[in-house]
Amino acid sequence: MSIPAETFFLDPQSQGTFQAQIQQMIAQGILSGRFARGEKLPSSRKLALHLGVSRITVTLAYTELVASDYLSSRGRSGYFVSDTAPEPPADPPQVAPSEAVDWARAIGQRFTGGVVPERPQDWSRYRYPFIYGQTDPALFDHANWRLCALKALGQKDFTALTTDYYDKDDPKLIEFILRHSLPRRGIIARPDQVLLTLGAQNALWLAAQVLLTQRRVAVVENPCYSALRDILTQSRCHMAPVSVDSNGLPPQDIPQADVIFTTPSHQCPTAATMPLDRRRALLRRAREMDALIVEDDYEFEMSFLSPPSPALKSLDADGRVIYVGSFSKSLFPGLRLGYLVGSEPFIREARALRASVLRHPPGHVQRTAAYFLSLGHYDAQIRKMGKVLADRRRVMEAAIRQHGLTIAGSGAFGGSSFWMRAPDHVDTQALTAALMQRDVLIEPGRHFFSAPNPPANFYRLAYSSIPAERIPEGIARIAQAIAALPAP
Amino acid sequence: MSIPAETFFLDPQSQGTFQAQIQQMIAQGILSGRFARGEKLPSSRKLALHLGVSRITVTLAYTELVASDYLSSRGRSGYFVSDTAPEPPADPPQVAPSEAVDWARAIGQRFTGGVVPERPQDWSRYRYPFIYGQTDPALFDHANWRLCALKALGQKDFTALTTDYYDKDDPKLIEFILRHSLPRRGIIARPDQVLLTLGAQNALWLAAQVLLTQRRVAVVENPCYSALRDILTQSRCHMAPVSVDSNGLPPQDIPQADVIFTTPSHQCPTAATMPLDRRRALLRRAREMDALIVEDDYEFEMSFLSPPSPALKSLDADGRVIYVGSFSKSLFPGLRLGYLVGSEPFIREARALRASVLRHPPGHVQRTAAYFLSLGHYDAQIRKMGKVLADRRRVMEAAIRQHGLTIAGSGAFGGSSFWMRAPDHVDTQALTAALMQRDVLIEPGRHFFSAPNPPANFYRLAYSSIPAERIPEGIARIAQAIAALPAP
Repeated sequence: MSIPAETFFLDPQSQGTFQAQIQQMIAQGILSGRFARGEKLPSSRKLALHLGVSRITVTLAYTELVASDYLSSRGRSGYFVSDTAPEPPADPPQVAPSEAVDWARAIGQRFTGGVVPERPQDWSRYRYPFIYGQTDPALFDHANWRLCALKALGQKDFTALTTDYYDKDDPKLIEFILRHSLPRRGIIARPDQVLLTLGAQNALWLAAQVLLTQRRVAVVENPCYSALRDILTQSRCHMAPVSVDSNGLPPQDIPQADVIFTTPSHQCPTAATMPLDRRRALLRRAREMDALIVEDDYEFEMSFLSPPSPALKSLDADGRVIYVGSFSKSLFPGLRLGYLVGSEPFIREARALRASVLRHPPGHVQRTAAYFLSLGHYDAQIRKMGKVLADRRRVMEAAIRQHGLTIAGSGAFGGSSFWMRAPDHVDTQALTAALMQRDVLIEPGRHFFSAPNPPANFYRLAYSSIPAERIPEGIARIAQAIAALPAP
Repeated sequence: MSIPAETFFLDPQSQGTFQAQIQQMIAQGILSGRFARGEKLPSSRKLALHLGVSRITVTLAYTELVASDYLSSRGRSGYFVSDTAPEPPADPPQVAPSEAVDWARAIGQRFTGGVVPERPQDWSRYRYPFIYGQTDPALFDHANWRLCALKALGQKDFTALTTDYYDKDDPKLIEFILRHSLPRRGIIARPDQVLLTLGAQNALWLAAQVLLTQRRVAVVENPCYSALRDILTQSRCHMAPVSVDSNGLPPQDIPQADVIFTTPSHQCPTAATMPLDRRRALLRRAREMDALIVEDDYEFEMSFLSPPSPALKSLDADGRVIYVGSFSKSLFPGLRLGYLVGSEPFIREARALRASVLRHPPGHVQRTAAYFLSLGHYDAQIRKMGKVLADRRRVMEAAIRQHGLTIAGSGAFGGSSFWMRAPDHVDTQALTAALMQRDVLIEPGRHFFSAPNPPANFYRLAYSSIPAERIPEGIARIAQAIAALPAP
């Protein structure tokens, strides 16, 4: 890489000569690590023109720097950072300007302090990754995704790629979701009732912002997706956690509330599936107290054991269910694409908020997904994933049984994980750390629970990213690690 | 497209027979427009399996629908929506369930009501599009962007494409911004001082959320980017508009405030460039009252008349400037990629908020931009754009002079637009509408001004999307349209 002339500026208020200033800028660039050994300096002509100084000034500065071994001259090819130039210190001094801002005062609202689950970015380097929600290269139809992305980069789609949609969405993707995705959940909706989001996370955030205030009450499942609790904490509403059972959220336990957040298809994290009669009871309970329901249907496609029951939203005669869909599990989380379905007055506000916060998901992402869906690759991928996941689940159940581990929750339809309970004395945070040393990744369960006193002995084992043949050994290692812990 | 079996659900509480229910679902699908003529129905075997009914039930339903001309049978190929099936009504009845929700009450916070600038999505169909901020196919290096996007779709970058980065960014793109983009603005920063955003819009929104509360005062330029005013209105801070002059925001007019939002490189929308001595004065004024500055440097690359002066941020010894960068103007707005540069305590909060709101910009977008930048295509594109824009600007200045139109603001370094003043009696909203009839797109200026009493006679003419050879005729039509208006 060559260093562009445009990165140099003279300070008219400086005391030194132009030549000295140029030498200093280059030396500092090298000492701070910004200019690396072997990089080419701008030609003396270009730099002189850019800085508005004479060419001889630049040449003299360069010559001095060659003498002090910062630069080397390669004749007509120009000047380069010398291969023996001083190295930047391994731990460079904090070159921050003297911070004059009192940040404790300057920051008006704090957003740090939420749960950031510790999931290693390098999970694929572990041999037994029971990690949840990352994409298995063996399952994702990368080749057809590439073809669709390439199609969406074509001349015909130039506008879809580059345009500023402001608050609008790609009509092709919306049409497909309306005609194909939602009917699979029993949902019939119109274009004005759907809004694309940057993944389910963004959908939940938008819904919370529109529906909640400091004076409102939100019911959350306990345990639940911890990022949802962070979203609600930031909205400053009153949060009422309700413990789930093996059928998910029990309607009779729900206190008076304004909004109920629930995951009926696969409760997160226990994987429980809410039976149809409880879904009806939940809708009755919501009607009774005139509450809204936000249904996070994040994993319905992973229903390979039996066909999924229709979404809660499909049973909703009142318009009180807001539905959250996502492509993160069935395609990949780095896509950042999901959607909200709800009544027009709600979608209108969510759309205005999204426009203000970020305008719209990138056009290319929307159009690529539209092609992948409409060309049938999505359905094919779901079928393929279903077969593989069913197989892995079978292997896993057998291994878990064989090693005497305890399943606390699975799912009636499939899903991609088991919710596990270790003996009471086991702290799964420590267990996770110990297992990482043995090449095994599991997810400790504590962060899913509402405070105070979250139980420490739950953990989640996903089979979405581990090949079937490695599962038995992985489970064996978990059992060994639990057994190795001192009994109480 | 064929209709998947998974879109059908039986209602166990329904009164009718299974056969009747199936007939009804299909007829309703056709009448509501969800199933289109020629689409293939699932095979009777598949549908029966999915619904858990006998195959003969499905076959009987299909046969009935053939008799009533909803379906046609093509022998062994199966059943299709008939080519003479009843058409859905052009204006379908509102099939919404009886809405039982009082949305006026249910919505906790409103976000509609901001300015949504009326910019036609089909701008490229106009012959004289003086439209701002959209991508000119003739200027954007689409071929190399495609190549970079394809590279980022490769096996080697599978993780960068698919992974859930949580609150992190693509390290390749961050490195490039730190080593290449920021030094061109005279800014030296560390990785912890940069955060990627969904465009400059998202960067401004994040900054406002972190820095402002109901009790704080924000200074905005008047006129200014109207979406910024909407962002600040939603933050509920007190807003203090300060009128700009031909050198941008005048420091001596700034009242006591907590945060100052400014566009020193090219004031939006007047295109004024703030001279260096005023930049220093602005920093002194901020220090005096211990305020922060948010510098939106949205168009610095368009400096083709003379090299851009360094960013305000580069002069900031206190750490009180927060810098907003964007690739929307130099690449394209549909990319939705920008960044924030600021002190660590600020970036930390903005990062936590971004993670909660949307996690991160899609991985593929980040990696593609990293390649496009690091392979030198970006610099080449900027040079090319600079040459073309300089030419268009020259043509445009001559045409404006020839037709006696009035420039209210241009930019010292270039930019991509002129800020224009029509005679006092001209309402440029009406002028815009009249010109659209004559194949000319201009942007009325009213929405840039703070209420009350925004002047009606300003407008913006951009040359970023109109070929040079069409400019003279376009300007002539504007002059004719103004002259055709009745004098006061």
